[in-house]
Amino acid sequence: MEPVGRRAEIEAGASLLAAAQAGGAGLVSLCGGEGWCHGCVVHVVAGEVSPPTTAERQALTETQLSEGCRLACQAIPLGDVRLDIPPDSLTAPQRLQVEGRATEVAADPLVTGVDLRLAPPTLRDLRSDAARLEAALAEQGQPSVRISYPVLAALPERLREQEWTCRAVLRQGEVVAVLPLASRLVGLAVDIGTTKLAGYLVDLASGQTLAQMGAMNPQIAYGEDVISRIAHAEQHAQGRQQLQERVVAAVSEMADGLCAEARVSPDQIVETVVVGNTAMHHLFAGLPVRHLALAPYVPVASQALSLPVRDLGLRVAPGGYVELLPNIAGYVGADHVAVILATDLWRTSRTTLVVDIGTNTEITLAAGGRLLSCSCASGPAFEGAHIRDGMRAAPGAIERVCIVQGKVHIYTVGGQAPVGLCGSGILDAVAEMRAAGVLDASGAMQMGAEGVRSTEQGPEYVLVAATQSGHGRDIVVTGRDVREIQLAKGAIRAGLDILLAEAGIDAGDVEQFLIAGAFGTYLDLSRAVRLGMFPEVPLERFRQVGNAAGMGAKQVLINAGRLRIASEVSRQVSYLELTTYPSFQERFLGALSM
Amino acid sequence: MEPVGRRAEIEAGASLLAAAQAGGAGLVSLCGGEGWCHGCVVHVVAGEVSPPTTAERQALTETQLSEGCRLACQAIPLGDVRLDIPPDSLTAPQRLQVEGRATEVAADPLVTGVDLRLAPPTLRDLRSDAARLEAALAEQGQPSVRISYPVLAALPERLREQEWTCRAVLRQGEVVAVLPLASRLVGLAVDIGTTKLAGYLVDLASGQTLAQMGAMNPQIAYGEDVISRIAHAEQHAQGRQQLQERVVAAVSEMADGLCAEARVSPDQIVETVVVGNTAMHHLFAGLPVRHLALAPYVPVASQALSLPVRDLGLRVAPGGYVELLPNIAGYVGADHVAVILATDLWRTSRTTLVVDIGTNTEITLAAGGRLLSCSCASGPAFEGAHIRDGMRAAPGAIERVCIVQGKVHIYTVGGQAPVGLCGSGILDAVAEMRAAGVLDASGAMQMGAEGVRSTEQGPEYVLVAATQSGHGRDIVVTGRDVREIQLAKGAIRAGLDILLAEAGIDAGDVEQFLIAGAFGTYLDLSRAVRLGMFPEVPLERFRQVGNAAGMGAKQVLINAGRLRIASEVSRQVSYLELTTYPSFQERFLGALSM
Repeated sequence: MEPVGRRAEIEAGASLLAAAQAGGAGLVSLCGGEGWCHGCVVHVVAGEVSPPTTAERQALTETQLSEGCRLACQAIPLGDVRLDIPPDSLTAPQRLQVEGRATEVAADPLVTGVDLRLAPPTLRDLRSDAARLEAALAEQGQPSVRISYPVLAALPERLREQEWTCRAVLRQGEVVAVLPLASRLVGLAVDIGTTKLAGYLVDLASGQTLAQMGAMNPQIAYGEDVISRIAHAEQHAQGRQQLQERVVAAVSEMADGLCAEARVSPDQIVETVVVGNTAMHHLFAGLPVRHLALAPYVPVASQALSLPVRDLGLRVAPGGYVELLPNIAGYVGADHVAVILATDLWRTSRTTLVVDIGTNTEITLAAGGRLLSCSCASGPAFEGAHIRDGMRAAPGAIERVCIVQGKVHIYTVGGQAPVGLCGSGILDAVAEMRAAGVLDASGAMQMGAEGVRSTEQGPEYVLVAATQSGHGRDIVVTGRDVREIQLAKGAIRAGLDILLAEAGIDAGDVEQFLIAGAFGTYLDLSRAVRLGMFPEVPLERFRQVGNAAGMGAKQVLINAGRLRIASEVSRQVSYLELTTYPSFQERFLGALSM
Repeated sequence: MEPVGRRAEIEAGASLLAAAQAGGAGLVSLCGGEGWCHGCVVHVVAGEVSPPTTAERQALTETQLSEGCRLACQAIPLGDVRLDIPPDSLTAPQRLQVEGRATEVAADPLVTGVDLRLAPPTLRDLRSDAARLEAALAEQGQPSVRISYPVLAALPERLREQEWTCRAVLRQGEVVAVLPLASRLVGLAVDIGTTKLAGYLVDLASGQTLAQMGAMNPQIAYGEDVISRIAHAEQHAQGRQQLQERVVAAVSEMADGLCAEARVSPDQIVETVVVGNTAMHHLFAGLPVRHLALAPYVPVASQALSLPVRDLGLRVAPGGYVELLPNIAGYVGADHVAVILATDLWRTSRTTLVVDIGTNTEITLAAGGRLLSCSCASGPAFEGAHIRDGMRAAPGAIERVCIVQGKVHIYTVGGQAPVGLCGSGILDAVAEMRAAGVLDASGAMQMGAEGVRSTEQGPEYVLVAATQSGHGRDIVVTGRDVREIQLAKGAIRAGLDILLAEAGIDAGDVEQFLIAGAFGTYLDLSRAVRLGMFPEVPLERFRQVGNAAGMGAKQVLINAGRLRIASEVSRQVSYLELTTYPSFQERFLGALSM
């Protein structure tokens, strides 16, 4: 079973779901194996299984079936079988913010290590430590190097402790670290989201990911969204510095954790790549963000930046650099450039849409050799914010909802008693409420429908009764919650439609529809299409690509050529400013219905 | 009167000394115009004066007289006269540590300014601030620039405050400052001595010195000499950082003072050049100094360094760089490289000795196309330290001594009542005591000689009686003081002799004998030769060149090519380690007698 690498033996006649459970791979199963929740889609890579059941023929397209997609609860293995389990079929704890499909790139990092054995100084050889190092590097074919200041300041002790041997780490003619002989060189890739951070530790020689980790963005204490962060940064004397220090400290802690897991020292992190939206990029880099909140929303810097680690205070090899990928515009940042890298959008010949869903949703359309981007203010509803019983995808969060004949079936993160709704749960709930007739096409809640009750704040739908919940209170979906989801999905749909219209392309001509981001990984595609968030594109053309921004950052770490490509991409993308786009309001209002 | 720029009218028949005094230029005059102290040497640049007197023919060589050198107390102007007054003839306050003879170099600094007028961003031109600046520079023929991190962080406010105009300052393809349109670009040259700092503010377009200033090195609080500083730096947890912060703060203060005088902002200091001995160089740069005190005394770095201003914490344009000249060896530092530049030693075809006298005295011999250097531990006696009544050249310090028929004549800095002896005063005193028979050739004080008295600590010579002194105590020269001077001058002489011997040159073949440094500027050459500190070279071959290290630093600031030359010089110099030189002890002991 990939990617969890589990093996299991089961009794003849038991389903793949049973096999997975026996092997310890938790699969999403709301319906208890009845075949109607479609949570347990797996991909049969090798081996024979029973023919598709009626439930499977309803849940999956012909193409999916022909490619080996099955519902694990329905399919029965007929011998040894090898399964690929997509992330959205896996329950926690395999579910990480950090997952994403990696594209293979050749290992050709910006930094290289050169092992050196130096002659110690004597009365006949009074060369300075730096001159000695430089001469040894010149002998190894690396003449005219510079030495990074922190490396120089630490050089005498390093060389003597290491008995005049070292691995000198070079980056574009500069010695950025002097490590013990034959040290493993590692790199850190970080995706700084407004809410979450994702970090990856990569072996720079092999390109192999040694460890990955998610963490909260501690800037949340200063505002949940980009605009409130900008306000804090610019309205308080030390605001900008405060926000920078917090996020840099969190990244440093993440680096410590990743290094502990991979059994390397943070000093071995000789290269770092950081992506994030433009505001997160600027705040991490300590650049002013004031003008990101003022029309015409121009960033301080859009080109790729190489900033010395010591200017940022990051606790990795102090002589190294942080590569910040270029930004496209004030609201299409370096993280989206990374998504374009990771999804091969920059070189695809197929008409492709990439949607990276977050508080701001960035969309890029690749069509006819052009890249066209926009940003939609989709709001934090899909992160569980601004929703009455919303919460992050923590244990107890409802992430799947089915309403069958008025009866609500739920599935929670970690299988615990429900305490609230995370993004995919609220999307599911609204889609199922619409299907069950609890909502009409305008999103109005139908008084008198089963489960709907009236309150002083308006109508609400009881999803989980207090007796069934983890905290003894009802879990409800309010009319206002529905409105939030409508605004979010409407913004995304308007953006998609405008990009397609600008390029003169029908939705049906889109050959690939890639959904990136944490929420995008776990949302139920058929329900998203049903709600009108995405246009009616055959389901098999969708692909959920996980944290593509993180994958793109990793690519740059592994292969320095990708940094150049990122710069080219950022210049070639045509950015469409939606807020001033003539038909935006009209399309947005039209996209609210469901 | 140069360099003080004074004018005076006097009665017919009055001397040049009277003219100088009338014009407010204080000249050294111990003998009250009798012609025997030789303190008031001036150079008649234009105009007719009376023929040389007997006193002048004794005091000055034929060459000097033919070049217009005169004793101001003897020469009487016969019409309008223009005088050049050498620094050692001037009394305080014109006497600064910072003086030195400038060699003309063409203004071709490392940094250049480009005036730009940018189009402000609009909804149709959403380029980032950095991209806007870069495009404007590309239009001016400066493509592919990088932007220094502090410049980038300040860019949005700068551009908007300056209404989208600026003078971008470029250094090797990097924007190191963004100043108001047409700002004057200035540079700071600093000579960091163990005791004193000298700073120069230079207009980078013209090469003109706008202001100069001397200050104490505040590291003195942590030890008077290099070895005690190194001990403090390495034996205390924050020692190195403490010493660095103190000296950097002092240089920052000096920069503020220089800028105030020149009416520019410290932000306009877009380039800084720093020289100092190897230990001062390392402490300023924050590099470890431990190994400078341990055999074989290798520096951390000997090559020229360009360190970002922000790594050092210097308060000048924060995006700029500090150029640190290369070091030659652990005890022949960047300051001596600057001396070699300033004295044109690197390209002279004449056999030349340069002696830069300080706590460590660095000597370089240029002969037969070679440069040969050594360092002598001459100690702090010439700075007034380790001398019973020693003091720095502050007001009240005795700086000239004549003993005529047992009677002591003195001259003090500022003409105030005497309170102690500065370096040139103690050298004069010892030389005069030897001439008066108070000391024998071994330096032993002759009991029974006039003015000599016995004390529990040994014999001492009363130079100024308590009734004549500024503090009501006797000012004396002790036997131990004499020993200090012997050790100092012996060390210098041994170094000189060994260099000459190594090069196979007789002292008589030395065509130029250049004396650099503050003490070297004010010492009395004939007495130094009489004491045996310098070999018997005809006096007219000596030249006192003042703070040549500071002049060399200024040259590098004005002309970037000099930095390359400095690097070549530092590699070409052959360094002779005296402490392990076979005949050093023997020559040193031989050089103690006088």
